[in-house]
Amino acid sequence: MSSLKQQLMLRVENDLNDIETALSQNLTPHVEMVRETAGHLIFSGGKRIRPLLNVLCARLCGYTDEFIKKFSTIIEFLHTATLLHDDVVDEATIRRGKPVAHSIWGAPVTVLVGDFLLARALHIAAETENPKIIKVIAEITESMCQGEILQLIKKGDPGLTEKEYMDVIRRKTGFLIQGACQTGAILAGASLEVEKKLADFGFHIGIVFQIADDLLDYTADTNILGKTIGADLREGKLTLPVIHTLEKAGADDRAWMEKIITDKDFTQAEFEKLIQLMHDTGGISYCRTVAENHIRQAKEIIHSFPSSETTRTLLMIADYTLNRNA
Amino acid sequence: MSSLKQQLMLRVENDLNDIETALSQNLTPHVEMVRETAGHLIFSGGKRIRPLLNVLCARLCGYTDEFIKKFSTIIEFLHTATLLHDDVVDEATIRRGKPVAHSIWGAPVTVLVGDFLLARALHIAAETENPKIIKVIAEITESMCQGEILQLIKKGDPGLTEKEYMDVIRRKTGFLIQGACQTGAILAGASLEVEKKLADFGFHIGIVFQIADDLLDYTADTNILGKTIGADLREGKLTLPVIHTLEKAGADDRAWMEKIITDKDFTQAEFEKLIQLMHDTGGISYCRTVAENHIRQAKEIIHSFPSSETTRTLLMIADYTLNRNA
Repeated sequence: MSSLKQQLMLRVENDLNDIETALSQNLTPHVEMVRETAGHLIFSGGKRIRPLLNVLCARLCGYTDEFIKKFSTIIEFLHTATLLHDDVVDEATIRRGKPVAHSIWGAPVTVLVGDFLLARALHIAAETENPKIIKVIAEITESMCQGEILQLIKKGDPGLTEKEYMDVIRRKTGFLIQGACQTGAILAGASLEVEKKLADFGFHIGIVFQIADDLLDYTADTNILGKTIGADLREGKLTLPVIHTLEKAGADDRAWMEKIITDKDFTQAEFEKLIQLMHDTGGISYCRTVAENHIRQAKEIIHSFPSSETTRTLLMIADYTLNRNA
Repeated sequence: MSSLKQQLMLRVENDLNDIETALSQNLTPHVEMVRETAGHLIFSGGKRIRPLLNVLCARLCGYTDEFIKKFSTIIEFLHTATLLHDDVVDEATIRRGKPVAHSIWGAPVTVLVGDFLLARALHIAAETENPKIIKVIAEITESMCQGEILQLIKKGDPGLTEKEYMDVIRRKTGFLIQGACQTGAILAGASLEVEKKLADFGFHIGIVFQIADDLLDYTADTNILGKTIGADLREGKLTLPVIHTLEKAGADDRAWMEKIITDKDFTQAEFEKLIQLMHDTGGISYCRTVAENHIRQAKEIIHSFPSSETTRTLLMIADYTLNRNA
C-alpha cells in the first residue's frame, strides 16, 4: 500500500467503519435475495470514496448529526445500482476481483435489484424531507442513466471526440461525486456559496476519478485492479488516453488503432504495442496533465476553507484520486 | 368496443388528451435516443388508467390546479419503466401489438432508459416539494421491484400458493395504482381519512386489474390483447386461474399440469385442454369471484363520497377493470 493511501486510511478509518455499518443497516429489503444480490457487490471491498466525501463535506460545513451516515448510503446505493446495470449492459465478467452479480443470479434479478437500490436511495433521500436534496439526488440519477446511454451509443466509434468523452464522464461519474459533496453541504445548512464551492470540488474530483479509472485500464496490474486490463477497449469503450493517442498518432498507426477499436479484438502483443503508442504520442501524460489540472482546482477550493483535520483529509483524497493503483 | 368502454371513453376523453400532452412534454431527456426508446412504449396506446385514476382522485378531493396533469405522468413513467425492464427480464417479444423496445434498441439501452424513467418520475415527484408524496412514490418503486423479484424467484414453481401470488400482485401492481389514488388525495390536501379511503380504493382496483390481466392471458383473443395468449404459462408465471385449478384438479390432471408448468412447453391442443380444465374446476369463475369482491369493496368506498360526475366515472372504471377484453 502506498504511503499516501496508508495515511489516508488511518484518518478515515472510523468514518469508513460507520459507513459499512450504515450500508448494512439501511439496505432493508423485504425479499432476502435482494440482500444477497445487492450485498454481493456492495460488500465486495468498494473504496467508499463517494459516501466518504459526502460525510467529510457535511463535516466541513459544521454538520454533526449522526444521520449523515445513513444519508451517505444513498450515494453508495446509487453507485451500486449503476454498477449492477452497467455490468449487465457491458456483459462484464468480473468486478472487484469477483464474478459479477449477473453471472451468479442472472441478468433479470440483477436488473431488478439495481432498480431496488435506485428506489431505496431515493426513499432515504425522501426521509430528509428536504426538497432541494431530493431534487439533487433525482437529477443525479437522471444524468447518470443518460451518461451511460451516451457512452453506449458511442461504443466502438473511433470518431468520439474529447468533448463528447468529457460529456459522458461528467454525467456518468462527475455528477454523482459532485452531488455527494453538494448534498453534504446542503444537509449541513451551508450557504449557497459554500454549497456551490463543494459541488465544484466534487465535480473536479469526479472527473479525475474517472480519468484515473480510464488510465488504469491501460496501466494497471490485473491482479491489483480486480478486473482484466484492456476491458474498456475490448468493449469498444473509447476513453481519453485512446482519444488523445488517435489524435496524435501518424496515419498508419491511427488506421491500425481504428481497426482494433472497430473489431473489438486484439492480441496481447497488439495491446502492448498500443500502450507503447500511448506513451510515445503523449496520450498517457496528456491524461495525467488534464487530471492534475482538475486536482489543482479541487485543492484550491479546499484551501479557501480554514485549515482543519477535515480539509487535510480532503486534500489527501484529491491527491489519492489520481495516484491510486486500483 | 363495449358500451361500458364507450361511455367511459366519452367521459374521460379530455383528461386522456391532457395526459397525453403532459407525457410528451415531461419526458424531456437530454439524449434523443431516450425519447425514441421510451416513447416507443409510452406512446403505444396504453390505457392510461393509472394517471387517469390519479387525476380523478385529486379532483374528487377538490383539487383544481393544472399541475395534476404533470404529476400524473409520474405514475405512467414508473409504470413504463417497469414494463421496459419486465420485458427484458421476461424476454418478451411483443407488447401492445408492437415489437418490444429491447428487440429494437437492445437490452442495454432499454435497461438504461427504464432507469431514466424511474429517475424522471422521482424528479417530478421532488418538484412537489411535498415529502409525504415523495416518500409514497419512492416506496411504490421499492415495492414494485421487489414484487417483480418475488415473481421471478417463483417462476416455474407449481407450488406457488394463492397467498404468495397475492403478495406478488399487491407489490407489483397494487401499490402503484394505490399510490396513484393516494397521491391524488395528498396533492389535494385531503384529510388522512380520505387519503386512506382512496388508497384502499386504488388497492382494490389494482388487484382487480392484475387478476383481469392474468385471466386475459387464458381467455382473450390474441389480436385484441396485443400479445400472445398463454405467454404467462410459457414463461412459467403462475397466476390465480392456474393456482386455483391446480388446487381443485384431480391427481392425474394436476400431474399433467405440473409437467407443462415445469417444461414451459405445450401444444395448442394442450393449451386448449388446460383452458377447459380451468373452466371445469371453477378456476376461471373463482378468479372472477375474487375480483368481483374487490370491485364491490372499491365501489363501496366511492359510494361514501357525495355523488358527482367524478364518482360516477370512478364507479365505471371499477366495473371496466374486470370487464375489459385487452
